[in-house]
Amino acid sequence: MCKAAPWQTGVYVPKDWTMASQEIENLVQALARLPGLGPRSARRAVLYLLKRPETTMKPILSAMEQVEANLVTCTICGNVDTKDPCQICSDPRRDEKSLCVVEEVSDLWALDKSRLFPGKFHVLGGKLSALDGVRPEDISIDKLLKRVEQGGIDEVVLAMNATLEGQATAHYIAERLESFPVRLSQLSHGIPVGGELDYLDEGTLAQALRSRRPVE
Amino acid sequence: MCKAAPWQTGVYVPKDWTMASQEIENLVQALARLPGLGPRSARRAVLYLLKRPETTMKPILSAMEQVEANLVTCTICGNVDTKDPCQICSDPRRDEKSLCVVEEVSDLWALDKSRLFPGKFHVLGGKLSALDGVRPEDISIDKLLKRVEQGGIDEVVLAMNATLEGQATAHYIAERLESFPVRLSQLSHGIPVGGELDYLDEGTLAQALRSRRPVE
Repeated sequence: MCKAAPWQTGVYVPKDWTMASQEIENLVQALARLPGLGPRSARRAVLYLLKRPETTMKPILSAMEQVEANLVTCTICGNVDTKDPCQICSDPRRDEKSLCVVEEVSDLWALDKSRLFPGKFHVLGGKLSALDGVRPEDISIDKLLKRVEQGGIDEVVLAMNATLEGQATAHYIAERLESFPVRLSQLSHGIPVGGELDYLDEGTLAQALRSRRPVE
Repeated sequence: MCKAAPWQTGVYVPKDWTMASQEIENLVQALARLPGLGPRSARRAVLYLLKRPETTMKPILSAMEQVEANLVTCTICGNVDTKDPCQICSDPRRDEKSLCVVEEVSDLWALDKSRLFPGKFHVLGGKLSALDGVRPEDISIDKLLKRVEQGGIDEVVLAMNATLEGQATAHYIAERLESFPVRLSQLSHGIPVGGELDYLDEGTLAQALRSRRPVE
């Protein structure tokens, strides 16, 4: 009988034998840090890029270079974009009179993706938090007050997260805006559309019950 | 009562009002084409990149530029890498005597990721297919024969997919290699580890039964 190859006797490939060159490993590791991609799917994505570099890698590369070179934070609202004022602030078709205040840029994107709010936005860049030592002057509240002070705004929608800190932030901003002639509103809380009572937490149920509406 | 804002009366944001500038939209669309990412997760990934461009976008950008600039197909085995011969072919620690033949680069990566095969590889770049008109001269079979002809190879492992065309390709290659003094082997077929009989197709069950082994 012929001698068994080493891998047939249980000797595995050592960890330091890399399959691909360092450049490719670097790309896998960099992509693996993206949310939604892990090491496995990053490897699959890289393989996809390597197979057809002209049609897959080139577009990403040039788009990323463009964004990277022009990235700025909007000096009016705090959104991130490749121009200042950002796409939303500089769009004359948007309703100047409605202002939606959110905690983070991700909240702005989530709201705007839903295409329900044709007004302008204001990004606080955080929320008040006694635990993390975030005070009103640490987030973009003064700038918000200045925007309202300048006039032309009819309604401010406080779209903070439905967390303790988010609601405390909304409450604080509402107090500061009390003296201005603007309508203040906030997102309603309650049962999410499609949600089943059975699966919801007590806090949501309590809120849904507390803010119940007459049947139309 | 004050006049309702247009969005309260059911007027939505028109589709052509983009939230972000064209550059960012381009990046979202380019990333959305990656396997494992859709439009939603691509947007989330871009948001993540925009928040901390220095630590997230820069590494991906430079890694991708490096790979893009150096990408080559290995002239020995057909793997894609940033050098030629590739990392695997040029590694002197790998067993020159064992050669594993696979259909695609993705198969090579899948096998090598498992760290079970310390030999070298050969990528056919496809499989024989009467339907798609792929003939033996269209894939890298002649090159494989030349590698075996040169000597120094003890065993050729045929690691084609367990599909009709994959197995036809394996069969064809086995015939062409018959006259060479090499051991030929192929991956075993059967019940996947962790698989439950109840959920397996008839073909797999038949194969598992046909190639049953004595209990050790």
